[in-house]
Amino acid sequence: MSKKTTIYDIAKELQITAATVSRALNNNPRISKNTRELVLETAARMNYKQNRLALALKSGKSNNIGVVVPYINRNFFSSVIRGVEDELYPKGYHVIISQTHEDKDRELKIIQNLLNAQVDGILISTSYTNEEKNKLEPALKKSTPFIFFDRKLDFPDISSVTIDDYQGAYDATKHLIDQGCKRIAHFYVNNGLELYKNRLLGYKNALLQSGFEVVPEYIIPLKNDMEAGMEAAKTLMNLPVPPDAIFSSTDNSLLGAVKYLQGLPIHIPDDFCVVGFSNEPFTEFMEPSISSVDQSPVEMGRMAAKVFLEQMDSEQSVKIHKKVILPAKLVIRKSSSKIQ
Amino acid sequence: MSKKTTIYDIAKELQITAATVSRALNNNPRISKNTRELVLETAARMNYKQNRLALALKSGKSNNIGVVVPYINRNFFSSVIRGVEDELYPKGYHVIISQTHEDKDRELKIIQNLLNAQVDGILISTSYTNEEKNKLEPALKKSTPFIFFDRKLDFPDISSVTIDDYQGAYDATKHLIDQGCKRIAHFYVNNGLELYKNRLLGYKNALLQSGFEVVPEYIIPLKNDMEAGMEAAKTLMNLPVPPDAIFSSTDNSLLGAVKYLQGLPIHIPDDFCVVGFSNEPFTEFMEPSISSVDQSPVEMGRMAAKVFLEQMDSEQSVKIHKKVILPAKLVIRKSSSKIQ
Repeated sequence: MSKKTTIYDIAKELQITAATVSRALNNNPRISKNTRELVLETAARMNYKQNRLALALKSGKSNNIGVVVPYINRNFFSSVIRGVEDELYPKGYHVIISQTHEDKDRELKIIQNLLNAQVDGILISTSYTNEEKNKLEPALKKSTPFIFFDRKLDFPDISSVTIDDYQGAYDATKHLIDQGCKRIAHFYVNNGLELYKNRLLGYKNALLQSGFEVVPEYIIPLKNDMEAGMEAAKTLMNLPVPPDAIFSSTDNSLLGAVKYLQGLPIHIPDDFCVVGFSNEPFTEFMEPSISSVDQSPVEMGRMAAKVFLEQMDSEQSVKIHKKVILPAKLVIRKSSSKIQ
Repeated sequence: MSKKTTIYDIAKELQITAATVSRALNNNPRISKNTRELVLETAARMNYKQNRLALALKSGKSNNIGVVVPYINRNFFSSVIRGVEDELYPKGYHVIISQTHEDKDRELKIIQNLLNAQVDGILISTSYTNEEKNKLEPALKKSTPFIFFDRKLDFPDISSVTIDDYQGAYDATKHLIDQGCKRIAHFYVNNGLELYKNRLLGYKNALLQSGFEVVPEYIIPLKNDMEAGMEAAKTLMNLPVPPDAIFSSTDNSLLGAVKYLQGLPIHIPDDFCVVGFSNEPFTEFMEPSISSVDQSPVEMGRMAAKVFLEQMDSEQSVKIHKKVILPAKLVIRKSSSKIQ
């Protein structure tokens, strides 16, 4: 594969300096007409690629926005991206997407790479926790706008768009209580992310405020996947007094639990109610359909894009930091509809 | 939001030319030590961002690879992307992803944008058809390597990695014949893409070579979505002689058909067999599980990345064009297992 022709190749070919080639290509009046024509002809002959990036370096604007997510194939994240695109594409921005696979080193490299690629902004759902946030700090101090969505870090001067995870979890747990459930378990993803801590808190407070105890054995720490949910349900059902409901902080792990429960002589929702979190499409199509907390991903993406645009459009001296918290919406389906 | 500091800002501040600033930043020996130090100090004070892209302009290498897909949230495409990342990330490349939403104008803009952003290569599943391929030609003539995967165009000098769609469709149809199905219908996505034409051809030839007739009413042109599949199944079942099997060129449209058939007094697979194409994860989890043709997406992604690396590593004067066709694998599940 042939290497790209650079101004240095043209300079070498013509035995002049790269600076002269650069000036000639940029119509600098200090360059004679003859030299300019010679450079342009040679550039054309050597298939020199006119480079808008060079112009971007000059204007400081590339019209590219980097969106960084843990996984592109989760419906939540792909829907956020759709929201971002819906908002930014009509305004002439290109959205380039990178996935971190929840690998923190990789996330840092991706951010560096996007900064090096001169993106105009980075919208990111981070896999870092507040405990390790100092590792991201050097990148965040650059002048390129950062906006956190869904998974944020506590930096006072960085904008974020999240949903009210506490409220969503509170509503889900309260709903189970209202359905008559007495022993409500919780699947808690213990990867240190703030959003899972907030969901745990919402669960606990809903119990306490309704006069229920928080039973430590009913809170199962796990990974966000189906296998972990299956295992967790097994652990719960082998307790001396098993629970009669699960509020899971993720739909994926709840899917595993439902598959496990369906192998037992237990009827959902008559004997056991479940509510998940994320409102993944499969929750609607399953039998029984699964109640879940909706995170309004398209709206979240649109909002993150709007916050970015606001920062771009503001006066040079004005710094805007915005914390937007969207409401979480409990979607009630068969899996928790004990009372008709 | 503050504008990025450029060499032009530094030049203005110091009342020298941008060329001098550039030379000083690049340690050009023609610049005096004093001037160099002054420029470096000023650059630091003005928060000038050291720019690896500027170096990329010089070396002609950005270590970024653009991957362009119709949709990031289809399991097939996100799996191809995983394969590409698995192969390229350990070699120091960053994969940046863009989705076209099957909008051709947008696809062209994305390609231009990636070329402007100096990516080292573009791996693309195009939404253009061979009839319109001339519109992409100017972009493909650049020196940046292009590799088509899955959805390709017929350019003799552009590499591609595809699966054997003809063979996959032939095998699926032959399997339905072997199961005793007599009237096999076909869902044909009529958006002009070569791969769907090849699947149609495989279907037709399997019928003809087994002594069956091709019945035009049994070939339903449709869009690749669930609603279209539902509608198509309704059309088929209202024919005077309805079919007893469907080979669908997509799983999504087959999902709609299965949902429609399940509303009728018809048992799958005893009365009616179905086979899809893509092996989307839901085909495995549905009841009954759905037979489908697997496209080995991770392998396809890895192969596309390997073809790219081969082109990058080859001598300047050597041009490599490779057409890789991976085998399609029929995965037989309950939906077409009439004979146990």
